[in-house]
Amino acid sequence: MLIRHAQPEDLDDIRCILEPVIRAGETYPLPRDMTQVEALAYWMEPNHETFVAEDDGRLVGTYYLRANQPGGGAHVANCGYVTARGAEGRGVARRMCEHSLQQARDRGYLAMQFNFVVSTNERAICLWHRTGFETVGRLPLAFKHPRLGMVDALVMFRRL
Amino acid sequence: MLIRHAQPEDLDDIRCILEPVIRAGETYPLPRDMTQVEALAYWMEPNHETFVAEDDGRLVGTYYLRANQPGGGAHVANCGYVTARGAEGRGVARRMCEHSLQQARDRGYLAMQFNFVVSTNERAICLWHRTGFETVGRLPLAFKHPRLGMVDALVMFRRL
Repeated sequence: MLIRHAQPEDLDDIRCILEPVIRAGETYPLPRDMTQVEALAYWMEPNHETFVAEDDGRLVGTYYLRANQPGGGAHVANCGYVTARGAEGRGVARRMCEHSLQQARDRGYLAMQFNFVVSTNERAICLWHRTGFETVGRLPLAFKHPRLGMVDALVMFRRL
Repeated sequence: MLIRHAQPEDLDDIRCILEPVIRAGETYPLPRDMTQVEALAYWMEPNHETFVAEDDGRLVGTYYLRANQPGGGAHVANCGYVTARGAEGRGVARRMCEHSLQQARDRGYLAMQFNFVVSTNERAICLWHRTGFETVGRLPLAFKHPRLGMVDALVMFRRL
Protein backbone atom coordinates (compact mmCIF):
# COMPACT_ATOMS: atom_id res chain seq x y z
CA MET A 1 0.00 0.00 0.00
CA LEU A 2 1.34 3.40 -1.03
CA ILE A 3 0.21 6.51 0.82
CA ARG A 4 0.88 9.75 -1.06
CA HIS A 5 -0.41 13.30 -1.51
CA ALA A 6 -3.69 13.56 -3.40
CA GLN A 7 -3.34 14.75 -7.00
CA PRO A 8 -5.92 16.46 -9.20
CA GLU A 9 -6.51 13.20 -11.07
CA ASP A 10 -7.54 11.54 -7.76
CA LEU A 11 -10.53 13.84 -7.24
CA ASP A 12 -13.04 11.54 -8.83
CA ASP A 13 -11.92 8.56 -6.76
CA ILE A 14 -11.92 10.64 -3.57
CA ARG A 15 -15.45 11.79 -4.38
CA CYS A 16 -16.54 8.14 -4.71
CA ILE A 17 -14.83 7.18 -1.43
CA LEU A 18 -16.54 10.00 0.48
CA GLU A 19 -19.98 9.49 -1.05
CA PRO A 20 -21.28 6.48 0.98
CA VAL A 21 -19.90 7.92 4.23
CA ILE A 22 -21.70 11.23 3.70
CA ARG A 23 -24.98 9.54 2.72
CA ALA A 24 -24.87 7.12 5.68
CA GLY A 25 -24.25 10.01 8.12
CA GLU A 26 -23.20 7.58 10.85
CA THR A 27 -19.60 8.56 11.52
CA TYR A 28 -19.01 12.19 10.50
CA PRO A 29 -21.07 15.20 11.59
CA LEU A 30 -21.75 16.30 8.03
CA PRO A 31 -25.09 16.94 6.33
CA ARG A 32 -26.30 13.77 4.63
CA ASP A 33 -27.63 15.87 1.75
CA MET A 34 -24.26 17.55 1.13
CA THR A 35 -23.54 17.56 -2.59
CA GLN A 36 -20.49 15.70 -3.85
CA VAL A 37 -18.88 19.03 -4.71
CA GLU A 38 -19.44 20.34 -1.18
CA ALA A 39 -18.04 17.12 0.26
CA LEU A 40 -14.89 17.39 -1.86
CA ALA A 41 -14.53 21.09 -0.99
CA TYR A 42 -14.77 20.21 2.72
CA TRP A 43 -12.31 17.32 2.47
CA MET A 44 -9.77 19.32 0.46
CA GLU A 45 -10.10 22.73 2.14
CA PRO A 46 -7.11 25.01 1.56
CA ASN A 47 -5.85 24.39 5.12
CA HIS A 48 -6.11 20.59 4.72
CA GLU A 49 -3.24 18.52 3.39
CA THR A 50 -4.96 15.60 1.69
CA PHE A 51 -3.49 12.13 1.20
CA VAL A 52 -4.66 8.96 -0.54
CA ALA A 53 -3.89 5.29 0.07
CA GLU A 54 -3.31 3.34 -3.12
CA ASP A 55 -3.26 -0.44 -3.32
CA ASP A 56 -2.61 -2.26 -6.56
CA GLY A 57 -3.39 0.87 -8.56
CA ARG A 58 -6.70 1.52 -6.83
CA LEU A 59 -7.49 4.14 -4.18
CA VAL A 60 -8.57 2.41 -0.97
CA GLY A 61 -8.68 5.38 1.37
CA THR A 62 -8.08 9.07 1.93
CA TYR A 63 -7.23 11.29 4.86
CA TYR A 64 -6.54 14.94 5.60
CA LEU A 65 -4.11 16.53 8.04
CA ARG A 66 -4.46 20.06 9.38
CA ALA A 67 -3.81 22.18 12.46
CA ASN A 68 -6.73 21.64 14.81
CA GLN A 69 -6.71 25.28 15.93
CA PRO A 70 -4.84 28.38 14.75
CA GLY A 71 -2.70 30.60 16.99
CA GLY A 72 -1.88 29.14 20.41
CA GLY A 73 -3.46 25.81 19.43
CA ALA A 74 -1.55 25.33 16.18
CA HIS A 75 0.85 22.71 17.61
CA VAL A 76 -1.98 20.14 17.76
CA ALA A 77 -2.85 18.34 14.54
CA ASN A 78 -6.20 16.95 13.45
CA CYS A 79 -7.03 14.31 10.85
CA GLY A 80 -10.05 12.73 9.23
CA TYR A 81 -9.85 9.29 7.57
CA VAL A 82 -12.16 7.40 5.23
CA THR A 83 -11.63 3.88 3.93
CA ALA A 84 -13.16 3.01 0.57
CA ARG A 85 -16.23 0.80 0.67
CA GLY A 86 -15.11 -2.74 -0.04
CA ALA A 87 -11.59 -2.14 1.31
CA GLU A 88 -12.47 -2.50 5.00
CA GLY A 89 -10.71 -5.04 7.20
CA ARG A 90 -7.37 -4.78 5.40
CA GLY A 91 -5.69 -2.33 7.76
CA VAL A 92 -6.19 0.70 5.50
CA ALA A 93 -7.30 2.99 8.34
CA ARG A 94 -4.48 1.79 10.59
CA ARG A 95 -1.90 2.42 7.86
CA MET A 96 -3.33 5.87 7.14
CA CYS A 97 -3.34 6.71 10.85
CA GLU A 98 0.26 5.63 11.32
CA HIS A 99 1.25 7.59 8.22
CA SER A 100 -0.54 10.67 9.49
CA LEU A 101 1.15 10.48 12.89
CA GLN A 102 4.56 10.48 11.19
CA GLN A 103 3.57 13.28 8.81
CA ALA A 104 2.36 15.31 11.79
CA ARG A 105 5.64 14.71 13.66
CA ASP A 106 7.59 15.72 10.55
CA ARG A 107 5.69 19.02 10.45
CA GLY A 108 6.52 19.75 14.10
CA TYR A 109 3.13 19.03 15.62
CA LEU A 110 3.33 17.94 19.25
CA ALA A 111 0.00 16.14 19.54
CA MET A 112 -3.00 14.96 17.54
CA GLN A 113 -6.65 15.43 18.47
CA PHE A 114 -9.87 13.95 17.12
CA ASN A 115 -12.69 16.31 18.01
CA PHE A 116 -15.75 14.23 17.33
CA VAL A 117 -15.52 10.44 17.31
CA VAL A 118 -19.05 9.05 17.30
CA SER A 119 -19.25 6.69 20.28
CA THR A 120 -21.01 3.97 18.27
CA ASN A 121 -18.11 3.85 15.79
CA GLU A 122 -16.51 1.07 17.83
CA ARG A 123 -14.18 -0.13 15.14
CA ALA A 124 -12.59 3.33 14.86
CA ILE A 125 -12.39 3.83 18.62
CA CYS A 126 -10.71 0.47 19.04
CA LEU A 127 -8.19 1.40 16.34
CA TRP A 128 -7.45 4.82 17.83
CA HIS A 129 -6.84 3.20 21.21
CA ARG A 130 -4.46 0.71 19.62
CA THR A 131 -2.56 3.54 17.93
CA GLY A 132 -2.07 5.36 21.23
CA PHE A 133 -5.05 7.71 21.52
CA GLU A 134 -6.81 8.30 24.80
CA THR A 135 -10.36 9.48 25.30
CA VAL A 136 -9.98 12.88 26.95
CA GLY A 137 -13.58 14.01 26.66
CA ARG A 138 -17.12 12.72 26.21
CA LEU A 139 -19.78 14.96 24.64
CA PRO A 140 -23.12 13.74 25.96
CA LEU A 141 -25.67 12.97 23.21
CA ALA A 142 -23.82 15.33 20.87
CA PHE A 143 -24.51 13.24 17.75
CA LYS A 144 -27.83 12.38 16.19
CA HIS A 145 -27.25 8.97 14.64
CA PRO A 146 -29.68 8.28 11.77
CA ARG A 147 -30.48 4.77 13.07
CA LEU A 148 -29.58 4.84 16.76
CA GLY A 149 -30.80 8.29 17.81
CA MET A 150 -28.83 10.56 20.12
CA VAL A 151 -25.44 9.12 21.06
CA ASP A 152 -22.29 10.48 22.70
CA ALA A 153 -19.23 11.67 20.83
CA LEU A 154 -15.68 11.34 22.11
CA VAL A 155 -12.70 13.68 22.06
CA MET A 156 -9.51 11.65 21.57
CA PHE A 157 -5.94 12.82 21.94
CA ARG A 158 -2.36 11.63 21.83
CA ARG A 159 1.05 13.22 22.09
CA LEU A 160 3.48 12.74 19.22
CA MET B 1 -27.76 46.61 29.31
CA LEU B 2 -29.29 45.86 25.92
CA ILE B 3 -28.19 42.81 23.95
CA ARG B 4 -29.11 42.91 20.27
CA HIS B 5 -28.03 41.68 16.86
CA ALA B 6 -24.90 43.37 15.51
CA GLN B 7 -25.56 45.97 12.80
CA PRO B 8 -23.21 47.19 10.07
CA GLU B 9 -22.60 50.42 12.02
CA ASP B 10 -21.27 48.33 14.96
CA LEU B 11 -18.37 46.91 12.97
CA ASP B 12 -15.86 49.51 14.07
CA ASP B 13 -16.73 49.04 17.75
CA ILE B 14 -16.58 45.23 17.41
CA ARG B 15 -13.17 45.57 15.77
CA CYS B 16 -11.96 47.62 18.75
CA ILE B 17 -13.38 45.11 21.25
CA LEU B 18 -11.66 42.17 19.54
CA GLU B 19 -8.32 43.91 19.03
CA PRO B 20 -6.77 43.59 22.54
CA VAL B 21 -7.98 39.99 22.89
CA ILE B 22 -6.35 38.98 19.60
CA ARG B 23 -3.08 40.79 20.41
CA ALA B 24 -2.87 39.31 23.92
CA GLY B 25 -3.44 35.78 22.57
CA GLU B 26 -4.18 34.46 26.05
CA THR B 27 -7.78 33.27 25.77
CA TYR B 28 -8.59 32.42 22.14
CA PRO B 29 -6.57 30.12 19.86
CA LEU B 30 -6.19 32.78 17.18
CA PRO B 31 -3.01 34.11 15.56
CA ARG B 32 -1.79 37.16 17.48
CA ASP B 33 -0.77 38.75 14.19
CA MET B 34 -4.23 38.37 12.66
CA THR B 35 -5.23 41.61 10.96
CA GLN B 36 -8.28 43.47 12.23
CA VAL B 37 -10.08 42.61 8.99
CA GLU B 38 -9.31 38.89 9.46
CA ALA B 39 -10.47 39.08 13.08
CA LEU B 40 -13.77 40.68 12.06
CA ALA B 41 -14.23 38.16 9.24
CA TYR B 42 -13.70 35.31 11.73
CA TRP B 43 -16.05 36.79 14.33
CA MET B 44 -18.79 37.51 11.80
CA GLU B 45 -18.50 34.43 9.58
CA PRO B 46 -21.60 33.72 7.49
CA ASN B 47 -22.58 30.83 9.79
CA HIS B 48 -22.20 32.99 12.93
CA GLU B 49 -25.07 35.03 14.33
CA THR B 50 -23.37 37.98 16.00
CA PHE B 51 -24.71 39.99 18.93
CA VAL B 52 -23.52 43.07 20.82
CA ALA B 53 -24.10 44.21 24.39
CA GLU B 54 -24.81 47.92 24.67
CA ASP B 55 -24.70 49.87 27.91
CA ASP B 56 -25.51 53.56 28.04
CA GLY B 57 -25.02 53.90 24.28
CA ARG B 58 -21.63 52.21 24.28
CA LEU B 59 -20.76 48.66 23.16
CA VAL B 60 -19.39 46.70 26.11
CA GLY B 61 -19.23 43.23 24.59
CA THR B 62 -19.95 40.99 21.65
CA TYR B 63 -20.69 37.32 21.12
CA TYR B 64 -21.48 34.93 18.31
CA LEU B 65 -23.80 31.92 18.20
CA ARG B 66 -23.51 29.08 15.70
CA ALA B 67 -24.03 25.34 15.32
CA ASN B 68 -20.93 23.65 16.68
CA GLN B 69 -21.03 20.95 14.01
CA PRO B 70 -23.08 20.43 10.87
CA GLY B 71 -25.16 17.33 10.12
CA GLY B 72 -25.68 14.97 13.05
CA GLY B 73 -24.03 17.46 15.42
CA ALA B 74 -26.14 20.49 14.47
CA HIS B 75 -28.32 20.37 17.58
CA VAL B 76 -25.39 21.56 19.73
CA ALA B 77 -24.67 25.29 19.75
CA ASN B 78 -21.34 27.04 20.23
CA CYS B 79 -20.59 30.62 21.28
CA GLY B 80 -17.63 32.92 21.71
CA TYR B 81 -17.80 35.98 23.96
CA VAL B 82 -15.58 39.03 24.36
CA THR B 83 -16.06 41.82 26.90
CA ALA B 84 -14.73 45.26 25.98
CA ARG B 85 -11.58 46.32 27.75
CA GLY B 86 -12.57 48.58 30.62
CA ALA B 87 -16.01 46.97 30.98
CA GLU B 88 -14.85 43.92 32.96
CA GLY B 89 -16.36 43.08 36.34
CA ARG B 90 -19.82 44.42 35.52
CA GLY B 91 -21.44 41.13 34.58
CA VAL B 92 -21.24 41.70 30.82
CA ALA B 93 -20.02 38.16 30.06
CA ARG B 94 -22.60 36.63 32.38
CA ARG B 95 -25.40 38.62 30.73
CA MET B 96 -24.18 37.69 27.24
CA CYS B 97 -23.94 34.02 28.23
CA GLU B 98 -27.47 33.98 29.67
CA HIS B 99 -28.75 35.75 26.55
CA SER B 100 -27.02 33.25 24.30
CA LEU B 101 -28.46 30.27 26.20
CA GLN B 102 -31.96 31.63 25.64
CA GLN B 103 -31.27 32.44 21.98
CA ALA B 104 -29.94 28.90 21.51
CA ARG B 105 -33.05 27.41 23.15
CA ASP B 106 -35.26 29.60 20.92
CA ARG B 107 -33.51 28.20 17.85
CA GLY B 108 -34.10 24.62 18.96
CA TYR B 109 -30.58 23.73 20.07
CA LEU B 110 -30.49 21.04 22.74
CA ALA B 111 -27.06 21.80 24.23
CA MET B 112 -24.18 24.24 24.12
CA GLN B 113 -20.50 23.34 23.88
CA PHE B 114 -17.32 25.37 24.33
CA ASN B 115 -14.54 23.59 22.46
CA PHE B 116 -11.46 25.30 23.76
CA VAL B 117 -11.53 27.11 27.10
CA VAL B 118 -7.95 27.93 28.09
CA SER B 119 -7.43 26.41 31.54
CA THR B 120 -5.70 29.54 32.88
CA ASN B 121 -8.77 31.66 32.02
CA GLU B 122 -10.10 31.10 35.54
CA ARG B 123 -12.55 33.95 35.48
CA ALA B 124 -14.31 32.51 32.43
CA ILE B 125 -14.26 28.93 33.76
CA CYS B 126 -15.78 30.08 37.04
CA LEU B 127 -18.51 31.92 35.14
CA TRP B 128 -19.28 28.96 32.87
CA HIS B 129 -19.57 26.71 35.92
CA ARG B 130 -21.96 29.20 37.53
CA THR B 131 -24.09 29.26 34.38
CA GLY B 132 -24.43 25.47 34.38
CA PHE B 133 -21.54 24.23 32.23
CA GLU B 134 -19.58 21.16 33.12
CA THR B 135 -16.06 20.30 32.06
CA VAL B 136 -16.46 17.22 29.86
CA GLY B 137 -12.93 17.11 28.47
CA ARG B 138 -9.38 18.25 29.15
CA LEU B 139 -6.94 18.70 26.26
CA PRO B 140 -3.48 18.25 27.72
CA LEU B 141 -1.10 21.13 26.92
CA ALA B 142 -3.20 22.01 23.88
CA PHE B 143 -2.65 25.78 24.22
CA LYS B 144 0.60 27.70 24.01
CA HIS B 145 0.05 30.65 26.32
CA PRO B 146 2.29 33.62 25.42
CA ARG B 147 3.35 34.15 29.06
CA LEU B 148 2.70 30.82 30.79
CA GLY B 149 3.84 28.33 28.15
CA MET B 150 1.95 25.14 27.39
CA VAL B 151 -1.30 24.85 29.34
CA ASP B 152 -4.38 22.63 29.12
CA ALA B 153 -7.62 23.60 27.42
CA LEU B 154 -11.06 22.46 28.56
CA VAL B 155 -14.13 21.28 26.68
CA MET B 156 -17.25 22.53 28.47
CA PHE B 157 -20.84 21.48 27.85
CA ARG B 158 -24.36 22.00 29.11
CA ARG B 159 -27.81 20.87 28.09
CA LEU B 160 -30.40 23.52 27.31
